Amino acid sequence: MSEANGEAEDLMSGFRLVYSRLKADLLEDPAFSFTEESRQWIDRMLDYNVPGGKLNRGISVVNSYKILKGGQLNDDEFFLASVLGWCVEWLQAYFLVLDDIMDNSHTRRGQPCWFRLPKVGLIAANDGILLRNHIPRILYRYFREKTYYVHLLDLFNEVEFQTASGQMLDLITTHKGEEDLSKYKLPVYNRIVQYKTAFYSFYLPVACALLMAGENLDNYIDVKNILVDMGTYFQVQDDYLDCFGDPQVIGKIGTDIEDFKCSWLVVQALERANEQQLKVLSENYGNPDPSCVTAIKTIYTDLNLQAVFSKYEQESYEQLISAIEGQQSKPVQELLKSFLHKIYRRHK
Amino acid sequence: MSEANGEAEDLMSGFRLVYSRLKADLLEDPAFSFTEESRQWIDRMLDYNVPGGKLNRGISVVNSYKILKGGQLNDDEFFLASVLGWCVEWLQAYFLVLDDIMDNSHTRRGQPCWFRLPKVGLIAANDGILLRNHIPRILYRYFREKTYYVHLLDLFNEVEFQTASGQMLDLITTHKGEEDLSKYKLPVYNRIVQYKTAFYSFYLPVACALLMAGENLDNYIDVKNILVDMGTYFQVQDDYLDCFGDPQVIGKIGTDIEDFKCSWLVVQALERANEQQLKVLSENYGNPDPSCVTAIKTIYTDLNLQAVFSKYEQESYEQLISAIEGQQSKPVQELLKSFLHKIYRRHK
Repeated sequence: MSEANGEAEDLMSGFRLVYSRLKADLLEDPAFSFTEESRQWIDRMLDYNVPGGKLNRGISVVNSYKILKGGQLNDDEFFLASVLGWCVEWLQAYFLVLDDIMDNSHTRRGQPCWFRLPKVGLIAANDGILLRNHIPRILYRYFREKTYYVHLLDLFNEVEFQTASGQMLDLITTHKGEEDLSKYKLPVYNRIVQYKTAFYSFYLPVACALLMAGENLDNYIDVKNILVDMGTYFQVQDDYLDCFGDPQVIGKIGTDIEDFKCSWLVVQALERANEQQLKVLSENYGNPDPSCVTAIKTIYTDLNLQAVFSKYEQESYEQLISAIEGQQSKPVQELLKSFLHKIYRRHK
Repeated sequence: MSEANGEAEDLMSGFRLVYSRLKADLLEDPAFSFTEESRQWIDRMLDYNVPGGKLNRGISVVNSYKILKGGQLNDDEFFLASVLGWCVEWLQAYFLVLDDIMDNSHTRRGQPCWFRLPKVGLIAANDGILLRNHIPRILYRYFREKTYYVHLLDLFNEVEFQTASGQMLDLITTHKGEEDLSKYKLPVYNRIVQYKTAFYSFYLPVACALLMAGENLDNYIDVKNILVDMGTYFQVQDDYLDCFGDPQVIGKIGTDIEDFKCSWLVVQALERANEQQLKVLSENYGNPDPSCVTAIKTIYTDLNLQAVFSKYEQESYEQLISAIEGQQSKPVQELLKSFLHKIYRRHK
C-alpha cells in the first residue's frame, strides 16, 4: 500500500470513530427523556441509515479544511471538521430515507430501504425528521461558542431549503413528464440537478470548511458557482452510468428509464430525435417492460449519446479547469481541483 | 359586540394580513429559482395547510408579547410578533401534514388531508419538509440583525427536536400497546404529551415573546415547566372531549378508541378496572366495530371517569394557579393566567 493510501485509510478510520461519539451524544441528549425502547430505536435507526454510504461528502469536509489550513490538522481540528462532515452525512441520510418513501423504492446501499423493514413502515417518515433534527443538536453541542456558529446554522438551513425545493421541482416535473415527455428539457434538467443535488453534495462540504477556516461565505460566490457546476457534471455522469455503466463496477442496476426519470440521456435524446424516434421514445419511456427499455436504449445508441456524453465530459472539464484557474487563492484552486480530479472520467 | 371582542377581531385580522406578506416573500425567495408551476404549487400548498386552523398558537405570541411589554404594540412590534406567531403556525402545519401521512388520516380541519388530494399523494411528504424549511427562511429575512436571532434558531430547533422525539415515543408506544394494552401507563402518557404537544403548543409561543422582550430563556425554566404542565392538562381535556365532548361543539367526532390511542381515558380505565373489565378493555380497544366502541365507553362510564376527570381538572387548575402565583414577575403571572383561563373548563 502506498503511503498516500495509508494516510487516506487512517483518515477514514478516524472519521468513522467520530460517528460513534456523535451517536453516543445523541442517545444521551438531555433535551429528550429517552425510554430504553426509544434509545434502542434511534441507535438501530442511525446505524442502518447514516454510516453505510461511501462517505465522500463527509470526508470531503475534512480534506477541504486540510487544504485550506495548508497542512496537517491537530486532533481538535480533525474532530471538529469530522463533526461537520458527519452533519453532511446526516443530511444525506435524512433525504434518502424520505426520498425512498416518496419514490416507493425497494433497496438502498444494497439492503432494503429503512421504511421496508417490518417493524418500521411509515415511522420512517418521523425517523427522517429526527435525522434532520440531529444536525442542529450536534452543531449546538460542538459549535455554539464559535463565532461562525450562526453562519453554520444559516448555511445548513439554506442548503436544506434548496435541496427540498429541487426535490419539489423534480416531483412536479416527473408528473408533467408522465403526461408529456417533451417537458423534459435541458434548462429544467439543470435546475433540478443544481438544487436537488449539487448544493448539498458539492457546495455544502466546502462551505463548512470555509466557515471553519474563518472565511465569510459572501466572498465565495464564484467558488459556489464552480462547485454547483461540478455537481451538475457529476449528476450527468451518474445518469450516463445508470444506462451505460458496468453494473459490476457501479454496484447497482440502473432503472432511470423504467422510472420515467428526467435523466440527462432522455433530455439529449429528445433534443436529437427525428419524428419516428420521438414516437418510440414517448411510447416506451417509463415502461418497466424489458422490451420497452431495450427500445429506448437502442435509440440512445442510434443517436450516439455515448459520443455526445464524451464531448460534454471533455468540455465540462475544460470549462471547470479554466474557471478554477481564474481563482485568486492557491489553496482554493487546489481544493477545487482535488474535487474535480476525484470525479473526472469516473466509472463508478 | 363588546369592545374587548372588537379588539380581538382587529388583532386577528391584522395577524392574518401578515400571513399574506410572508407567503409573498416565500414565493419570491431568491435562494430558489422558481418555475411558474412550482410557485403555484407552493401558493396552493400554503393556503391549504397553514392558515386554516384556529391560530391560537400564533396569536398567543402576539398576546404574550403585549403583556410582557405592558401595553399596546407599535406597528413594527406587532408585525414582528405576528411573524413569530406564524412561524409557530408553520411548524404546526408541517407536523400535521406529516402526521396525517403517518396515521393514514382522512380529514383535517374539515377537509381532506393534503396528501389525499389527487395530484398530491406522497409529494405531501416533501411539502411538509418545505413548510419546515420556510421557518428559517422567514426568521432569516426578518430577524437576522436582532441580537436574539441565534436564540430564536436554537429555540425552534430544540422544540422541533422534542416534538419529533415525542412523536417517535408515541408511534413506538402505540405499536407496543397493540400487542399489550397494559403498556399504556400514566408516566408514559405524560411523557408523550409533554414532548409531542406541550413544548411547541404552550412553551414555544411564550418563549418567542420572551426572546423578543430581550429576556434570556435560561432564567425562565419555571415558566417552561408551568407551560408544559398546562399543555399536559390541555391534552388531557382533549382526550376527555374526544369521548365525552359534544361533537356539535368540538366540530369533529372522536376516534381515539377506534385508533388504539394511548388516551388519558384508557390509561385511567386500566388503572381502575377489575379483572373482568380488563378483559373487555383488551378485547375491544382499537376495534372500529361500533359495538366494541360502545363496550369501551360503557366501562369508562361504569368506572365513573367523568368524575375522575372533574377531580383532575380541579386539582390541575389549583396546582397551576399556585405555581403561577409563585412567580416573581407580575407580567409573567398575568401572561400565564391568561393562558390558563383560556383553557380551564373548556368544552371545545
